[in-house]
Amino acid sequence: MNVSPLAPEAFPELPAVAGVELRTFAAGLRYHGRPDLFLATMPDATTVGGVFTKSQCASATVDWCRSIIASGTARAVVCNAGNANAFTGVAGVASVQAEVNTLGESLNIDPNQIYVASTGVIGEPLDDDAMKTSLGELGAAPIATWQSAATAITTTDTFIKGASASLAGGNVVGIAKGSGMIAPNMATMLGFVFTDLAVTASACQTAIAQATQASFNKITVDSDTSTSDTVLLFATAQAGNDPIDGPEHREWAAFSAAVFEVCLDLAHQIVRDGEGATKFIEVQVNGATSDEAAETIARSIADSPLVKTALAAEDANWGRVVMAIGKAGAPADRDLVDIWIGDEQITSAGQVHAGYSEDRANAHLQGDEILVRVELGLGEGSSSIWTCDLTHGYIEINAGYRS
Amino acid sequence: MNVSPLAPEAFPELPAVAGVELRTFAAGLRYHGRPDLFLATMPDATTVGGVFTKSQCASATVDWCRSIIASGTARAVVCNAGNANAFTGVAGVASVQAEVNTLGESLNIDPNQIYVASTGVIGEPLDDDAMKTSLGELGAAPIATWQSAATAITTTDTFIKGASASLAGGNVVGIAKGSGMIAPNMATMLGFVFTDLAVTASACQTAIAQATQASFNKITVDSDTSTSDTVLLFATAQAGNDPIDGPEHREWAAFSAAVFEVCLDLAHQIVRDGEGATKFIEVQVNGATSDEAAETIARSIADSPLVKTALAAEDANWGRVVMAIGKAGAPADRDLVDIWIGDEQITSAGQVHAGYSEDRANAHLQGDEILVRVELGLGEGSSSIWTCDLTHGYIEINAGYRS
Repeated sequence: MNVSPLAPEAFPELPAVAGVELRTFAAGLRYHGRPDLFLATMPDATTVGGVFTKSQCASATVDWCRSIIASGTARAVVCNAGNANAFTGVAGVASVQAEVNTLGESLNIDPNQIYVASTGVIGEPLDDDAMKTSLGELGAAPIATWQSAATAITTTDTFIKGASASLAGGNVVGIAKGSGMIAPNMATMLGFVFTDLAVTASACQTAIAQATQASFNKITVDSDTSTSDTVLLFATAQAGNDPIDGPEHREWAAFSAAVFEVCLDLAHQIVRDGEGATKFIEVQVNGATSDEAAETIARSIADSPLVKTALAAEDANWGRVVMAIGKAGAPADRDLVDIWIGDEQITSAGQVHAGYSEDRANAHLQGDEILVRVELGLGEGSSSIWTCDLTHGYIEINAGYRS
Repeated sequence: MNVSPLAPEAFPELPAVAGVELRTFAAGLRYHGRPDLFLATMPDATTVGGVFTKSQCASATVDWCRSIIASGTARAVVCNAGNANAFTGVAGVASVQAEVNTLGESLNIDPNQIYVASTGVIGEPLDDDAMKTSLGELGAAPIATWQSAATAITTTDTFIKGASASLAGGNVVGIAKGSGMIAPNMATMLGFVFTDLAVTASACQTAIAQATQASFNKITVDSDTSTSDTVLLFATAQAGNDPIDGPEHREWAAFSAAVFEVCLDLAHQIVRDGEGATKFIEVQVNGATSDEAAETIARSIADSPLVKTALAAEDANWGRVVMAIGKAGAPADRDLVDIWIGDEQITSAGQVHAGYSEDRANAHLQGDEILVRVELGLGEGSSSIWTCDLTHGYIEINAGYRS
């Protein structure tokens, strides 16, 4: 598969996170010639927070993670690529239990401290015997790099995704995978974020929930939502800091900003790997009656197949933006709507803006970073949603790949 | 443009509707070599009911129709193809007023009895002078056929759409246009239905609202909703029947069934003309907690780009159906969901059904009429949504055409 034209030039340099040991293994469960199993082990004091798919048909692994996260503690996270262990009924539940039992025994840790994620085909039972053997190999594998870890969790991704942020006394590092079945909530299929700071479990939960809301939940590729979406934040407490225990803590602002920065960077990378994407698009809506109304309208524009095909064609077909504003259902007054493409104002007062130049708008659309801005003129509500265009490439990938 | 492979073999034979005089004219406002203006005039006693787009950015013509329909009476309906007169601000309002004034004068009828529809490009003001001249020609044109009328209202349609139903003492005949910007409410861009029966205005409104809810509002091509969607039912009272005044009337059942039959036929034709469509798909959801919940889930499946691309590829990728059920948000118990493709049961009790044959499922998908059936096992709620697949053709059409 060709690398997305919107991919970053290179995988970033990511610092180590004290206490986190990465391992990967090429089990060949579905993909060959590259690692497809990922394991991170962490020390005893590690805390965790997580956000999961809102799907009514969540995978067995998501059910498992939800069932153990109340403890707020973690010793490991394991992920396999190629089989989502979703819609696998009682067999799926048994597979997860077998995984954590196998790993718990070989790593000598409590199975209830092992978080599990799976991504890939839906509805095929895992091969438990093969998995058991492979997990044994994984646990005994040498220490791996972030690059190898980011590779091991991918499926249809055309490039691997990592990001980091540093703050006084610690690091935040994340890897993610995802390129389709993205939106409208929990856009990433998988995101694993680690910090060496000491952070209480409830502060981990608050930080990752807030960061996800403003990052992974603000992107959309195809308006579809995976059964397996999982974002986890682990804090290994190796940095020797006074534990960050919530928004009142003096380090909270810097810490939560670092988590958000990592999540937003990963979320944008996922959009840049949208299936068939050739344009990275920000849809910004201001002047709505509320932030929620702004988001509803921004999402309606970002999810509209007619808007996304027009942008793919580099055509400033703003009538489709009007259509998408209208269908969203949130308050909008047709005769107050102003629309910009890049710096070019297209409409004012509900009709074409005097001096609008379609040539200038189309020139902006020829770039690969597009801004569609809507000013509703009704209030103070604002929201941005990030998406990509809809191209032949999307059809090509999804009319062929069994995901 | 090639005719859709799902098109009916021929335009149906449609009976005349006593009192309705059809006229068309090739004004060349945007399209050339075919009529692009349509006029139906009707006698004094004509009543009307209508349903309009739920868009917050409705076109000037929709605003006009809404403003006059409370009278319940009509003498004419006029439609132009090529320019939607939508998002045209005060100029758009003035254009509609000029249209009805011009026609009212030349036909000697009250402008407030003239319904107006426009379809085509959004955001370009109508050329009022050209329109005035053309409307003069239209009013003086010879009587036209249903075929010519159905042609005059099309834009990107690849075939023209008409349907009829007969009942004791009268006829119901309809024409429609639409192939993209379809759903989630008021899927047809335009539908005009006529009967020679005497029907009170409120009974017209009830009949067309009920019929639309169960037909045009149950189809989706691309989840997009037009600014101009309009369905109107005119009753010319020429059949000499005892006026049908509502659901208590002895002819109501036959009459409302005939209106529904015409609307459902037209709605299915619109799906069959979905941009790039190669499959006509019914998504049927049963066993939901309510009909609304069933519709939410059916629509989620029918609108999912991942489901639609898989069906285009004739791939029984039922994992994507599970995904779409899960993301819908309506109640679903993963471990109770049964999924069928055609007559082939794929899942039972939340996992693959014993004896499922992917070959048999794929054989069904090779036809051009596809049934996806979901049994939720929770209650009595049912709904069907009709849609088409998502193909390269959709991208081809929408990344090029300025609609």
